[in-house]
Amino acid sequence: MVDSLKAIKARVRELKPYSLTPDRGLIKINQNENPWDAPARVKERTIEALRSRAWSRYPDFVPASLHERLAHFSNWTPDGIVAGNGSNELIQALLMVTVGEGRKVLISEPTFALYRQISTVLNGDIVSVPLKDDFSFDIPALIDAIKQHAPAVTIICSPNNPTGSVVTDLELERLLEATDGIVAVDEAYFDFSGHSTRSLLSLHRNLAVFRTFSKAMAMAALRVGYLLADPALAKEVSKAVLPYNLNAISQAGAETALDLYEEELRPLVDAIVAERNRLFVALSQIEGLVPVASRANFMIVKSAIKPKSVFNELLQRDILIRDVSGYPMLSDYFRVSVGRPEENEALITALREIFSHSVVW
Amino acid sequence: MVDSLKAIKARVRELKPYSLTPDRGLIKINQNENPWDAPARVKERTIEALRSRAWSRYPDFVPASLHERLAHFSNWTPDGIVAGNGSNELIQALLMVTVGEGRKVLISEPTFALYRQISTVLNGDIVSVPLKDDFSFDIPALIDAIKQHAPAVTIICSPNNPTGSVVTDLELERLLEATDGIVAVDEAYFDFSGHSTRSLLSLHRNLAVFRTFSKAMAMAALRVGYLLADPALAKEVSKAVLPYNLNAISQAGAETALDLYEEELRPLVDAIVAERNRLFVALSQIEGLVPVASRANFMIVKSAIKPKSVFNELLQRDILIRDVSGYPMLSDYFRVSVGRPEENEALITALREIFSHSVVW
Repeated sequence: MVDSLKAIKARVRELKPYSLTPDRGLIKINQNENPWDAPARVKERTIEALRSRAWSRYPDFVPASLHERLAHFSNWTPDGIVAGNGSNELIQALLMVTVGEGRKVLISEPTFALYRQISTVLNGDIVSVPLKDDFSFDIPALIDAIKQHAPAVTIICSPNNPTGSVVTDLELERLLEATDGIVAVDEAYFDFSGHSTRSLLSLHRNLAVFRTFSKAMAMAALRVGYLLADPALAKEVSKAVLPYNLNAISQAGAETALDLYEEELRPLVDAIVAERNRLFVALSQIEGLVPVASRANFMIVKSAIKPKSVFNELLQRDILIRDVSGYPMLSDYFRVSVGRPEENEALITALREIFSHSVVW
Repeated sequence: MVDSLKAIKARVRELKPYSLTPDRGLIKINQNENPWDAPARVKERTIEALRSRAWSRYPDFVPASLHERLAHFSNWTPDGIVAGNGSNELIQALLMVTVGEGRKVLISEPTFALYRQISTVLNGDIVSVPLKDDFSFDIPALIDAIKQHAPAVTIICSPNNPTGSVVTDLELERLLEATDGIVAVDEAYFDFSGHSTRSLLSLHRNLAVFRTFSKAMAMAALRVGYLLADPALAKEVSKAVLPYNLNAISQAGAETALDLYEEELRPLVDAIVAERNRLFVALSQIEGLVPVASRANFMIVKSAIKPKSVFNELLQRDILIRDVSGYPMLSDYFRVSVGRPEENEALITALREIFSHSVVW
């Protein structure tokens, strides 16, 4: 029998698809989303734009008006900005223009699974350096790996998903200076950390910063992300970005969110940060749980009860969390996103109940 | 000075970005769009779905409800369907899982420029077979190229952009049987041709059919496309498709368009086909113009006046066409999309005027 898949690359055939079970709990704190909906004014203004536009016409070849607004929002030059269909698309584009057979990608695990997935599809080799025991980035080990493997790209997720770890500007500069390749910083959660690596862009032409509208901006449904980089680097990455990659509705939504950010979205971010800190304290006080301090809108929690069992117990109470025990270093951990106050209260109550009996470390 | 772009692949650096000048004429017949807007019922029903949905929540990991509707629409199995952010994204995914250094991609030019662009970014080698002088596919030459080069993927655009040429099922089967690789048929314009290669799917496990909502479905602004293939092949291609690639709004729009297709969209397709045939006859009667019969919603036209001049003359009359004279074989041609009846009438009138003087072949 003819092998109809002969043309598929060997590494792709070996690859297990990245997937996530689409369970939906009433309290959904498994995907680090903004627990509030996009503000009503943002939705209505976007819908108005949508209604008056011809859907049969292509969106902008390049979404220039969004790039202008992002430039203002990020205090960076529009020709150093590329918006796309979620930040993942732009990370993929960066990897497409840099990674192929014999090229290496350096990551620090546990981290977001997609970096490994995309690099593997592109026939690149992953070099993985573990986080330190306290889940901080092991900068000396990363620098050693850079010297030894000369990666085309080093990817740092900061705050890191799922651990919440952050890289400091000083640490990042050491990586930027050690490598001949590109350092990609995935800043999906930067809004909750009070810090961005954006200020290093004008000093380091091999830095690429990725951001998303799926978290603080409350627009995961619309899929918008963007890249900030030196214009020369942005131009090269653009060559792997498909034309019309950003649909017209998502573009209108993102522009509206930026226009109304200070009034409508920043207060939600502030509320999430306050809730994160409150949740951390409350979980610390439950015997059998040790939350890990996080600068994002989620945290991992070490659990004396098997994470899978905690997941199931919570699901029975209509609370959906993320079991991260399959990640390296995290066999005893689950992850919770910060929800609305009443959701966090329900989580705390449920965990108190679950951990009130039978706690053995 | 350090070369901050050292990590970019050499072929990417040499690549000229694919681009299109975003001129907007009053009569826009340069992008093969549906000249009517999406039907009001489709828009309103989509907007209702949009209003009631939380934008802060991720779309479906895999858009299963859309896959179900597409299965019904295409009479194919849902696990052999992958929907995405425009068909280009899915063509890119197919090329990502098949193409790398030393892998070849066979195309027949002139054709849609993106196949070459994506293959080059992936370090693949393009093998190009010209269309025949009458712009039909040169099947014997393609088979020779398959034998000589063993391409991982052969891409046939049918109806072909920009020439409107179609491949017959018999011709396609000869290609499918000659190759060990995959044959990708880009059917972006199939609705206007009265024919689909879909019926060959159950016989040929190495066939991948790509379709879009940007043409007949009047939804270019929303970016939706899909792949039909054997489930085993669809599964491999999925590995290069990013999770949540299709935003929730576009998914809702596509589902609504399918639900209302017979009532709302098919009549538009019928009208476009009738207008295409009328336009063809009218252009044939203008001395200095020779339109090429097309099965799509556009046609190329051989012009006794330089295409660039015709483009400029029409632009002065607020009509925007596509100058395709830069494509191989097409130095004397421009391309027009089929517009609404009054738009086609304006085009015919303008061309009669432009060609009333000074016609020299």
